[in-house]
Amino acid sequence: MSKAEIGLIGLGTMGAALASNIADNGFDIAVWNRTSSVTDAFHANAGDLAARITPTQTLVDFVAAIAEPRAIILMVPAGQPVDDQIAALRPLLGDNDLIIDAGNANFHDTNRRAVEAGDLPFLGIGVSGGEEGARFGPSIMGGGKREYWDRVAHILSAISAKHETTACATWMGQAGAGHFVKAVHNGIEYADMQMIAEVYGIMRDGMGMDNAAIAATFAKWDQGPLKSYLIEISGKVAAAIDPATGQPMLDVIVDAAGQKGTGRWTAIEAQHLAAPIPAIEAAVVARNLSSQLETRAAGEALFGTGPRKLPHDALGLDTLEQALMVGKILCYAQGFDMISKASVEFGWDLPLPEIAKVWRAGCIIRSDMLDDMAQALGEDANRNLLFAPRFADIVKANHDALRQTVAMGALHGVALPALSSGLAYFDALRTARGTANMIQGQRDFFGAHGFARTDGGSGHHGPWGNS
Amino acid sequence: MSKAEIGLIGLGTMGAALASNIADNGFDIAVWNRTSSVTDAFHANAGDLAARITPTQTLVDFVAAIAEPRAIILMVPAGQPVDDQIAALRPLLGDNDLIIDAGNANFHDTNRRAVEAGDLPFLGIGVSGGEEGARFGPSIMGGGKREYWDRVAHILSAISAKHETTACATWMGQAGAGHFVKAVHNGIEYADMQMIAEVYGIMRDGMGMDNAAIAATFAKWDQGPLKSYLIEISGKVAAAIDPATGQPMLDVIVDAAGQKGTGRWTAIEAQHLAAPIPAIEAAVVARNLSSQLETRAAGEALFGTGPRKLPHDALGLDTLEQALMVGKILCYAQGFDMISKASVEFGWDLPLPEIAKVWRAGCIIRSDMLDDMAQALGEDANRNLLFAPRFADIVKANHDALRQTVAMGALHGVALPALSSGLAYFDALRTARGTANMIQGQRDFFGAHGFARTDGGSGHHGPWGNS
Repeated sequence: MSKAEIGLIGLGTMGAALASNIADNGFDIAVWNRTSSVTDAFHANAGDLAARITPTQTLVDFVAAIAEPRAIILMVPAGQPVDDQIAALRPLLGDNDLIIDAGNANFHDTNRRAVEAGDLPFLGIGVSGGEEGARFGPSIMGGGKREYWDRVAHILSAISAKHETTACATWMGQAGAGHFVKAVHNGIEYADMQMIAEVYGIMRDGMGMDNAAIAATFAKWDQGPLKSYLIEISGKVAAAIDPATGQPMLDVIVDAAGQKGTGRWTAIEAQHLAAPIPAIEAAVVARNLSSQLETRAAGEALFGTGPRKLPHDALGLDTLEQALMVGKILCYAQGFDMISKASVEFGWDLPLPEIAKVWRAGCIIRSDMLDDMAQALGEDANRNLLFAPRFADIVKANHDALRQTVAMGALHGVALPALSSGLAYFDALRTARGTANMIQGQRDFFGAHGFARTDGGSGHHGPWGNS
Repeated sequence: MSKAEIGLIGLGTMGAALASNIADNGFDIAVWNRTSSVTDAFHANAGDLAARITPTQTLVDFVAAIAEPRAIILMVPAGQPVDDQIAALRPLLGDNDLIIDAGNANFHDTNRRAVEAGDLPFLGIGVSGGEEGARFGPSIMGGGKREYWDRVAHILSAISAKHETTACATWMGQAGAGHFVKAVHNGIEYADMQMIAEVYGIMRDGMGMDNAAIAATFAKWDQGPLKSYLIEISGKVAAAIDPATGQPMLDVIVDAAGQKGTGRWTAIEAQHLAAPIPAIEAAVVARNLSSQLETRAAGEALFGTGPRKLPHDALGLDTLEQALMVGKILCYAQGFDMISKASVEFGWDLPLPEIAKVWRAGCIIRSDMLDDMAQALGEDANRNLLFAPRFADIVKANHDALRQTVAMGALHGVALPALSSGLAYFDALRTARGTANMIQGQRDFFGAHGFARTDGGSGHHGPWGNS
């Protein structure tokens, strides 16, 4: 029996989907899972693909089933399980065998593992697209030495999503670069999802629309400039009926959002980089607050529901669509600005236009707009995306809609944390003379921190006469 | 010559002020600075206090000048200099001599140093109040073993600020507890300052008020419910005239805010704790954006200044005052909620009412409102401050003012990131049925993450039919 071209460890939802994808693309793959029954069930249910899949019962058999030099994908839970798996695997491998962590690693861990690997081949790749993406074509962001990427690029490109004919599998840079880009992807995803949820809140609570009308609105928007996977599935989620009760599915789902931590990592890293990503931070906060179900119920009992219903015709659906377009651009502008800052800080030379391209298909935030973003970043990767003519024009034409939406949410008690923080970001960035002079005055008053003067020089102090 | 009761290393702005304060309270103090000329100048300019101050030229002389068991305050820059100073000092000390890091340490460093100290006496204390506070009475938040705190409590209490007759010097808990509380203090300070700056922006850009009118408004507010150090100095900063040009001082100060990192640490720690502090995060973002002077100028050139002038009578000054009152309560509610979460997470049993009390005088965020907060937290430390009757009543009576202010800022392009994020936090916390059901629907659709149902149970999936 010929040996497999690649191996994969960890047959959870994502691992199983990725292994099937690899087999489906004509590559022989060996698989192993800690629990053998999972491996057996996976193989038994693989249908036509079973012939290309070698199930193994022990790690030794698994390694022996792969052609040398081996390439082995880990799809185990992020954190200690990855380190444990590497420790168990390395002694069985040759010095030229490649370990690829394709899980949801924190990029700092990937940086560390790259150092620990030393001269032994190691890659960290971010895989986006959820279960469906992993099965039929994810977006893949790679990090590590280029030569190791090149060794498996034909497989990763084959299994990846395609934008037209371009594979969404890109080498981003050294060590944790791929997982870093994936983390920012997830941060943008958080903000994009949160803004959609906020607009849903306006439609539901402010405009009194039912789920069918909301679903139809998202479906319509998915034919226009907002066309994207998240808008598409938002429409489908709003349209779905719960088989158990016959109620709209959305009304049956508890309003407490879970998270696996990648949004949080992005927010933490942005603080270290001093990269302003307020819409992403607002989305993380919103998820945290959503889990405080009892506190929110007590809050509503104490403060009342307020006048959540907007006046008739206060906001049109076109206005909401325009507001969301601007909000979405602001999310991406913040995310790419963070990537740009990280590229400098970590010495990675991250390829910003290529990042926009790799997100065009396969991943959760795929959208038509990313094609334009790739163009804009190709023209000038160091410019805030908001300032690129094609996006500046959209923003100019539509920011009034975002203003009206945020104002209506504020006046009528519909929480719009991400949209309002996005707007404040935009207004701060178009204010040449801001208000931090007051903050500098205060800081110099109480702490003698000094300030720069508009007529030149820094380290000046005010005539406060307080000490 | 009798030996000093205490020693202090590091005669920068804060160290010199603290040393003078100690001497001024009748304690003999030995001082040492890496640069001897600084030590000499400090002593030479100490006036009446010089007799209580022992200047020393070497670390050995310094240690010899202090009575045993020694207590030595470090006031050196945070980070490596503290470790270096401890390493240089320990070999000269006895096993019962106490080192007190009174600088701006990250509490994680203090936790680490407490472990490294082992059985050797060590305290980490947060000192707030800027130069004036350090000189005439700061707010002091201590961390470390209680017995070491008790050894120097008489000195720290004597030099601390007093609220009526109560000393603002409190032991918070083990290891880094004091520096942690200080960090949250600084986070609240960031948010409070940012909200004041935002209201200043409304007055300046939205209402066309001149600096004198703005100064008069802050001065008036300082007589009402907003009475606080920050409102007081904001009025003084707005009133000040630049001696060099005769222009209002505020107009001469560049609008780029500096920071020493404590707001950032607070934001990072809040992410780790999943504690929602959006107003503090917004304030950190605002400082980061303020430093992008060129980008902001380009943004204004590209997008125009917008209709920053508000319609006549759109907002009254009373409305702004009420909005700021609610905003301020929201800042503190977020900060105390974070402290409450940290107390559980780190097993510190932090004394929330005592924290409100220790901030009543001496520190930058001192205000009349803190007395009521101490009361409210004394009634129930686990309840969000917003829900305490005395604050809920203020919020109920005034949140419409915050709504109008945020709406006007949004419509007219005056960036109000902290006020608007504070409002969104409030509205999220009084919405029993939020919009995270949409997010859970999306997450289950693309990632099969599962959701809880309103009729019970978790880990359910929707009928998406997508895979």
